[in-house]
Amino acid sequence: MKVLITGFEPFGGEEINPSWEAVERLPENIGGARLIKHRLPVTFRGVREILPRLIVEERPDVVILTGQAGGRPNVTVERVAINVMDSKMPDNEGFAPEDEPVFEDAPAAYFATLPVKAIVAALRRKNIPAGVSNTAGTYVCNAAMFTALHTIAVAGMETRAGFIHVPFIHEQALEKPRPSMALETVTRAFEVAVRTSLEV
Amino acid sequence: MKVLITGFEPFGGEEINPSWEAVERLPENIGGARLIKHRLPVTFRGVREILPRLIVEERPDVVILTGQAGGRPNVTVERVAINVMDSKMPDNEGFAPEDEPVFEDAPAAYFATLPVKAIVAALRRKNIPAGVSNTAGTYVCNAAMFTALHTIAVAGMETRAGFIHVPFIHEQALEKPRPSMALETVTRAFEVAVRTSLEV
Amino acid sequence: MKVLITGFEPFGGEEINPSWEAVERLPENIGGARLIKHRLPVTFRGVREILPRLIVEERPDVVILTGQAGGRPNVTVERVAINVMDSKMPDNEGFAPEDEPVFEDAPAAYFATLPVKAIVAALRRKNIPAGVSNTAGTYVCNAAMFTALHTIAVAGMETRAGFIHVPFIHEQALEKPRPSMALETVTRAFEVAVRTSLEV
Amino acid sequence: MKVLITGFEPFGGEEINPSWEAVERLPENIGGARLIKHRLPVTFRGVREILPRLIVEERPDVVILTGQAGGRPNVTVERVAINVMDSKMPDNEGFAPEDEPVFEDAPAAYFATLPVKAIVAALRRKNIPAGVSNTAGTYVCNAAMFTALHTIAVAGMETRAGFIHVPFIHEQALEKPRPSMALETVTRAFEVAVRTSLEV
Repeated sequence: MKVLITGFEPFGGEEINPSWEAVERLPENIGGARLIKHRLPVTFRGVREILPRLIVEERPDVVILTGQAGGRPNVTVERVAINVMDSKMPDNEGFAPEDEPVFEDAPAAYFATLPVKAIVAALRRKNIPAGVSNTAGTYVCNAAMFTALHTIAVAGMETRAGFIHVPFIHEQALEKPRPSMALETVTRAFEVAVRTSLEV
Repeated sequence: MKVLITGFEPFGGEEINPSWEAVERLPENIGGARLIKHRLPVTFRGVREILPRLIVEERPDVVILTGQAGGRPNVTVERVAINVMDSKMPDNEGFAPEDEPVFEDAPAAYFATLPVKAIVAALRRKNIPAGVSNTAGTYVCNAAMFTALHTIAVAGMETRAGFIHVPFIHEQALEKPRPSMALETVTRAFEVAVRTSLEV
Repeated sequence: MKVLITGFEPFGGEEINPSWEAVERLPENIGGARLIKHRLPVTFRGVREILPRLIVEERPDVVILTGQAGGRPNVTVERVAINVMDSKMPDNEGFAPEDEPVFEDAPAAYFATLPVKAIVAALRRKNIPAGVSNTAGTYVCNAAMFTALHTIAVAGMETRAGFIHVPFIHEQALEKPRPSMALETVTRAFEVAVRTSLEV
Repeated sequence: MKVLITGFEPFGGEEINPSWEAVERLPENIGGARLIKHRLPVTFRGVREILPRLIVEERPDVVILTGQAGGRPNVTVERVAINVMDSKMPDNEGFAPEDEPVFEDAPAAYFATLPVKAIVAALRRKNIPAGVSNTAGTYVCNAAMFTALHTIAVAGMETRAGFIHVPFIHEQALEKPRPSMALETVTRAFEVAVRTSLEV
């Protein structure tokens, strides 16, 4: 079994991105599956180029994309990705699309094919606050999730895919009153998510 | 050297109080000082009876009171206690005072005599999000802080005293989207606070 | 021209629902169009029975559904409705679906066909704080929005449709520190939305 | 009878300050009392120079200071002012004091002498969300409140004094998801506060 798990580079003025920090710290194998780790750029162009190639070449059984949702207090497993790119905040190469589709001729949305509720339940059992989120926004995170699910659908693959958003980690919130988690907790959350996606 | 450190029993429908959970887990000695741990009731009467007795009998060098501030995202060191008890939410024995003084003939407020800013800085250096708070509310936490500072002032003691509020811990926020911290982080925060209060 | 505009009955322990309070206060005609006002029940069954019938019988040019989003600080125009009903909080007849589709054999999502961005811009020009929302949740509001858009799509109608969420009004937040708006502001917001939907 | 009522100039990057916008729109007389309106600078030096002079020269029966508390969702009547100036954000002339007293040889705090709870109750009766606040911060607002109460105490005057914080008004929050109120509501709140302070 093979799991593709991605984190993002920093964006929005932050010096780190907890998603990649945690992905990097994951072991090479979880639950008998081999992990393929990839650090994605925070660009609409990048995720739409890189993810289809990675997924088609590697043919993973599970794809877990992860990203930072600064301000959210808990780990959230995304339910749905929508076919829109819309952001006043430019991405890391200065692109700020307004109401453009991620892909032309694609459906309005895809539901995550990861076991969303089972992952949330497993996280809670491991003492990690978690919930389902109904929006991954309309920035690069959503575009990445949409891209993965669309690629898999078009290719007729059976790969399970989805997206997990994580809060700031403590080092990002030392001086500001924003919710944050320990990096170890985020890393553990990803491990639980991988394991649950393989088992359920 | 002697440090009196207190936590509270649960209140407000919670089954645990992270302040006492963390105090209980502290070692018996920190930085050469002996810890006296006490679990306070969440009652206006209780804290005003117990704290003066404890402080006068034990004559600690440092008094650190701790409590839960559910909803706050970081560890907050309180700057000031005010001479008022005012709460629509009854305390744990059903008392809900309206605009009553904690003590008659006492000043309007006492500033914490702990090294507030130094504790905040030390917490941040240890990767624990922290800040100064300008209000301990008007519930039992504030009454406890006021009681300790008033007792020490009236007795002419040199004891440093203050109050630290902590967020929910993860087990309290598993299913609700509220900020929370790991219990280990809260425990570490208290250890840092004790050490800093002894050193600065 | 005909505009169907709906508000909801109260739910979640509230005694009023600002959406219906405001719809009720709208004039009978706006911008040359006749308004058909309807108060919807907060039930998954109700909205799926009533809305298709109303839309097919009345054949309105514009459908604006409105609802309360307690806690949001501004008027939000929803971008998308998703094909899922999922709620731990039972609806007003006690139904609490878990991960059920609103309609079988329907797409994962529909985008609003109202001029979402133009409404937001018009509201701001009229001094009403407003924004686009990317999730109408998975409760009855989303089910209503999905139902309207699905009905229109299946019937091959040209009707524009969408959903507007409004904050609590002042009378609902007098004693709690939650964002709220004046009822007059909410009513004016709906008038602006109707006018913009007819013009743009 | 004479009422001194003040608002502040803009600060923190805002182009207006709702407190002064509302004070300016108040009538010249309320409940038989004459209003003296003053626009204060957002400077620690300014408020400590201007308020003592104004209060001693005008000898008002009531002093109501008002200011903006961006982010708060309701009108808050402050309970207490503390003897500290502490801010990383510089005031409007670039001064950023750290842990300095507002006045040497002054008490740690003064409680407002306005009828705080009666004002809150009157606001709610007039459909304006309101509450008591236990901290006016440690920026210029608190310094102004402390200055007024200290001046009155030292002069042995009977003047009632206090501070009211108001949310952003709509024009400040059109494009950001922050709580806001209509300017008319803020103006009405001040009128209610003046009237209640004269009557209760």
